[in-house]
Amino acid sequence: MKILVTNDDGVYAPGLWAAVDALEGLGEVVVVAPDREQSGVGASVTLNSPVRVVEVVPPLEGIHTYAVEGTPADSVIVALESLVENVGMVVSGFNSGFNLGEDVLVSGTVGAVLQGYFRGIPSLAVSVGSLHATDFRAANLLLTALAQEVAEGGLPRSVLLNANLPPVAPKEIKGIDMTRLARRRYADTVRKGDDGKRAYYWITRTRPAWDVEEGTDVWSVRHRRISITPLQTDMTAASVLVGAIGLSERLQRLFGPVSS
Amino acid sequence: MKILVTNDDGVYAPGLWAAVDALEGLGEVVVVAPDREQSGVGASVTLNSPVRVVEVVPPLEGIHTYAVEGTPADSVIVALESLVENVGMVVSGFNSGFNLGEDVLVSGTVGAVLQGYFRGIPSLAVSVGSLHATDFRAANLLLTALAQEVAEGGLPRSVLLNANLPPVAPKEIKGIDMTRLARRRYADTVRKGDDGKRAYYWITRTRPAWDVEEGTDVWSVRHRRISITPLQTDMTAASVLVGAIGLSERLQRLFGPVSS
Amino acid sequence: MKILVTNDDGVYAPGLWAAVDALEGLGEVVVVAPDREQSGVGASVTLNSPVRVVEVVPPLEGIHTYAVEGTPADSVIVALESLVENVGMVVSGFNSGFNLGEDVLVSGTVGAVLQGYFRGIPSLAVSVGSLHATDFRAANLLLTALAQEVAEGGLPRSVLLNANLPPVAPKEIKGIDMTRLARRRYADTVRKGDDGKRAYYWITRTRPAWDVEEGTDVWSVRHRRISITPLQTDMTAASVLVGAIGLSERLQRLFGPVSS
Amino acid sequence: MKILVTNDDGVYAPGLWAAVDALEGLGEVVVVAPDREQSGVGASVTLNSPVRVVEVVPPLEGIHTYAVEGTPADSVIVALESLVENVGMVVSGFNSGFNLGEDVLVSGTVGAVLQGYFRGIPSLAVSVGSLHATDFRAANLLLTALAQEVAEGGLPRSVLLNANLPPVAPKEIKGIDMTRLARRRYADTVRKGDDGKRAYYWITRTRPAWDVEEGTDVWSVRHRRISITPLQTDMTAASVLVGAIGLSERLQRLFGPVSS
Repeated sequence: MKILVTNDDGVYAPGLWAAVDALEGLGEVVVVAPDREQSGVGASVTLNSPVRVVEVVPPLEGIHTYAVEGTPADSVIVALESLVENVGMVVSGFNSGFNLGEDVLVSGTVGAVLQGYFRGIPSLAVSVGSLHATDFRAANLLLTALAQEVAEGGLPRSVLLNANLPPVAPKEIKGIDMTRLARRRYADTVRKGDDGKRAYYWITRTRPAWDVEEGTDVWSVRHRRISITPLQTDMTAASVLVGAIGLSERLQRLFGPVSS
Repeated sequence: MKILVTNDDGVYAPGLWAAVDALEGLGEVVVVAPDREQSGVGASVTLNSPVRVVEVVPPLEGIHTYAVEGTPADSVIVALESLVENVGMVVSGFNSGFNLGEDVLVSGTVGAVLQGYFRGIPSLAVSVGSLHATDFRAANLLLTALAQEVAEGGLPRSVLLNANLPPVAPKEIKGIDMTRLARRRYADTVRKGDDGKRAYYWITRTRPAWDVEEGTDVWSVRHRRISITPLQTDMTAASVLVGAIGLSERLQRLFGPVSS
Repeated sequence: MKILVTNDDGVYAPGLWAAVDALEGLGEVVVVAPDREQSGVGASVTLNSPVRVVEVVPPLEGIHTYAVEGTPADSVIVALESLVENVGMVVSGFNSGFNLGEDVLVSGTVGAVLQGYFRGIPSLAVSVGSLHATDFRAANLLLTALAQEVAEGGLPRSVLLNANLPPVAPKEIKGIDMTRLARRRYADTVRKGDDGKRAYYWITRTRPAWDVEEGTDVWSVRHRRISITPLQTDMTAASVLVGAIGLSERLQRLFGPVSS
Repeated sequence: MKILVTNDDGVYAPGLWAAVDALEGLGEVVVVAPDREQSGVGASVTLNSPVRVVEVVPPLEGIHTYAVEGTPADSVIVALESLVENVGMVVSGFNSGFNLGEDVLVSGTVGAVLQGYFRGIPSLAVSVGSLHATDFRAANLLLTALAQEVAEGGLPRSVLLNANLPPVAPKEIKGIDMTRLARRRYADTVRKGDDGKRAYYWITRTRPAWDVEEGTDVWSVRHRRISITPLQTDMTAASVLVGAIGLSERLQRLFGPVSS
């Protein structure tokens, strides 16, 4: 099995190579990742200009490694469409920092694996909850096991998993939960500054306030448990849809007697 | 009511000013939009560097207009957190080109309004289905009516609507549907080229193959109908979650006898 | 005569429009300028990716105005090669902030006019010495006069002038000097910071220490005089060349008995 | 002696590592280079936003190697001001492709070494004349010898040399010349295209027409000779200056009877 590994922290982030290390025994690993840190870019795809790719020297010998001058999603698209054939699994991580709740929409780590999922390839995003995470042993154990499940067909082919681990040693992990995404009460702020010539606005991700009900990803990691959330990409608000009949009827009148 | 208008085609795109035109009678319109076209960037937020803002000359006199050196989401965040107080509605559009189905995840038009929705502000994304759309009359009618609904409290406060119109005159519109997002069978391609010095990869959005069941947004626009899809931001795959108990139990063993 | 106006402060900088105002009576003015502030980019040309151009709404009615998603040099190249025919003069300015001495090498204001000069078109860069300059009356007088000289053939066709004005009212100007570039004792600094996730380095142009001999541009502006420096683009160090015969001979031996 | 090596082809370009190989015996080599190809950026310095630096894995063991998310000039500034103390020489190269004549003004290879020269550090730019150069043996010989000269004080401390080699094996080199920069008759073109949504302009460096008098750098490389041009940074057009008295007097009148 060929395994594509990417991330949003950049091709040299230690977390990525810890993930490669976990996967090496399970298949041929190829790394195609952004050349620069790309936190916050979500599912962003570069359409306005061409994307460049450079083969670079890997920290682990023998791993074909490409740096992409683009986003995590660009990296996976170019990898799957042009660089690597017959990929059996896409892994994004280990990200340094959680990707929880509604934040997955702006997460480059998750944005990358969407492109595997869209193409029907089992895809895993794995994050460790500290911006300066260095202990990836628990993530290593988890990824090895998940990849084994994929290899043995233990997971449905069209699966997209978002795993988050507390930044602790394996023996301090209290358990593993299948979770749903928590809701966030929003808390981004803008720090205003000036560089001497012009004002600037620096968007800063502040610690959000979460609805931390049991069963959510946030609840689990706060209790030193591993959270695994299966994701899907249908953003339809089904409940609103049901109640929106009245709106539809009111709007119909705008366009006169219609002949549907 | 203050209305924030943005887009992902850039602050000078004609579609944006057609939207402003539709809204002017309903409140004080402020435009805060990217200075450059940003198609494909989705919900991307710039965290790595500061964002600059320049007040520019509007095509419609009297509208405060800011160009942001960043993404659509950056524009809305900076607007709501720093530039404009008491915004009662966020509108993104009129986009030139559809934003349908799973593509909403990479749509800058939708990525912008997410930031209004996260903050509990009624938010509308409106797209017209042609890259070179110039007739925005139907979109104008629709937006005026939707904004009226918001102003009169006819819609729940926490609503996020994604509207798509076929690129035709109002009288050719066959109807209006409340829809769910269609599923896409993926079809992006990468065009490989060379600039004389280096190879490049240009990601191209090809016409996707859709599952066009009735009830979906794609079905509606194909039948010359307006599609309005209520969106939400929980990407949890609830159905997978239910079936994943076995996985969870298998993984638990990895971390030994745990003391949850 | 068609006059191309550009700058490095971005298409909406007030200085640019003050320059347009000075030139309107002398010919047909077309503005092609970067859409974003580009200080420090020097003669930089974008070769790696395509450049986009958007026609925008000008603060002065009737002036064709294009915003370029690129550098000042890109703007002039695209203007002269694709957008505007028969340009008789290229003007860059009014820049807010001096462009003096060796700094002209990193000045986008000067980098822009190099592209006019390379093509044999009389080219003028005009800067006013304050980052927050708002009084452009002296610059206006000077530019009108210089443009008149160009129009009447009073200047050689292949001329590149770099003018700097102190940020004062016309009646406070003490005189006008034809100058040479001052030498700079270098003083850029790097401010180290951290955004919570990663360290960053912000390059800051500190006030340089200059060799301010009489006859230099720096001497003039310090004495409230206007400095006009004719520029050329041959960076050969002629004096070093003369003394370098010995080096050449020593190196010859490396490649054995040569047959020149 | 500490030697700083950089380039404009990106930190993984083979030419850079061929240069490192030539210098390893002469001192402690540190590599600080752009993470991406930067051709055409000239002396461009990033002032608008912070610059990021990542330590990467070098192709040659034991060489401290930093990738900079910025220009060649950024790389040298950050290196000299923040990362590496007591640098005794700055080397930029081996560039793949000539940097000749007036093109040095838009050359990132030369733009990098300007920052060493400004700080009084002997600085060398070395280019091999093919975009796809792979044989760096002659460049290796030359750089070793030049660096030896610097180490032994054989060159003035404030020297900036721009070397260009024809892309041939050492034994085919016909000689070495100390040269002046050739003049270029300009020949850049703009290729217009469309990505389906918008027009684009791609600036292309066409083969320029040169004034190839003997004594110039272009003449030398065309005759399979190595060209070494000493550079300086004073762009004053001394000859124009002398003839410009009349202009100065005409302009004086603008500002009335002045009291210099």
